[in-house]
Amino acid sequence: MTGFFDLLKKRRSIRDYEEKDVPLDLVKEIIRESCLAPSSGNGQPWRFIIINNRDWIEKLSDESKKNILSFIEQNPDAPLKQYETVLRDKHFNVFYNAPCLVFIGGSKKTGSIQVDCTLAACYFMFSAQARGLGTCWIGLGTNIQNPEIRKQIGMPEDYRIVAPIIIGYPRTIPDTPERMDPHILKTVR
Amino acid sequence: MTGFFDLLKKRRSIRDYEEKDVPLDLVKEIIRESCLAPSSGNGQPWRFIIINNRDWIEKLSDESKKNILSFIEQNPDAPLKQYETVLRDKHFNVFYNAPCLVFIGGSKKTGSIQVDCTLAACYFMFSAQARGLGTCWIGLGTNIQNPEIRKQIGMPEDYRIVAPIIIGYPRTIPDTPERMDPHILKTVR
Repeated sequence: MTGFFDLLKKRRSIRDYEEKDVPLDLVKEIIRESCLAPSSGNGQPWRFIIINNRDWIEKLSDESKKNILSFIEQNPDAPLKQYETVLRDKHFNVFYNAPCLVFIGGSKKTGSIQVDCTLAACYFMFSAQARGLGTCWIGLGTNIQNPEIRKQIGMPEDYRIVAPIIIGYPRTIPDTPERMDPHILKTVR
Repeated sequence: MTGFFDLLKKRRSIRDYEEKDVPLDLVKEIIRESCLAPSSGNGQPWRFIIINNRDWIEKLSDESKKNILSFIEQNPDAPLKQYETVLRDKHFNVFYNAPCLVFIGGSKKTGSIQVDCTLAACYFMFSAQARGLGTCWIGLGTNIQNPEIRKQIGMPEDYRIVAPIIIGYPRTIPDTPERMDPHILKTVR
């Protein structure tokens, strides 16, 4: 199991990618492994959308930025305010110019959708890393609202984006950031 | 990375445990590795509570059953209704008589608490499995409401239980249940 502990300890969120594209078959293989995640009542409610096109990823970045900025204007006290300056930068791509983006989500009607898709996303990130790929969960990437855009990328009306994950070949792998000591509130023996 | 793929493919939710206790140091080591999970803005908001005592686990099972049954009485159309018969069985322990239970959760005020704690739980389950232990996420175990009980197990008032995870040495490892083919809604090339 040495391989696994190495994986666990070295996984990093990657925001700097090589130009190289990710073969679609590889993305699909990683998605297949993500589906091995446990889910509430084994419901497997996760649905995937693959965006393997840089122009489309930029378009989705613009759509995200527009919606978040409009939200910040209406809610100037929201924590998202901290991202305003960078979001106003035309050259900033919320998906860090990654070659590929995968949305993991599902129906809003499924009560466990957030937990189930987060588990699939965790599997996705490990499976990608084990193949030498890097990933990053883009919290700012869930704001795709334009109905026309949603339709074009195959997103059903009741689809909730839980995890927008970018994937590609890492150009650089940053050092592991400090982790706080585990915060154990109590041990009942 | 063979070790990892093996881990990924063979992980199962375990509901049948040996009598053997789990050493507390081992649980703490697994918790330390869970904290390597990514979190929103690297906030690391996860807080852990370890229940390494079978009497306490049974008490928490009774508390969970009581609260879910009361919820079902008030909401007879809720999906939880399907568990009513088993929940009324005095001998049924929602934590499957596991020797140890770990609550992963944190402050309700943290907007990303559900996603962050689910990622830590995913790391927890892999880390335990890599050490020959079994785990199961107990969805029915989040209903600990009694203020006195919450206080006794060190749960702050604003604490939201995201993942109640049981852990122990598996007596039997069931076969991997069928997985549906991945549901890819669209591939944009």
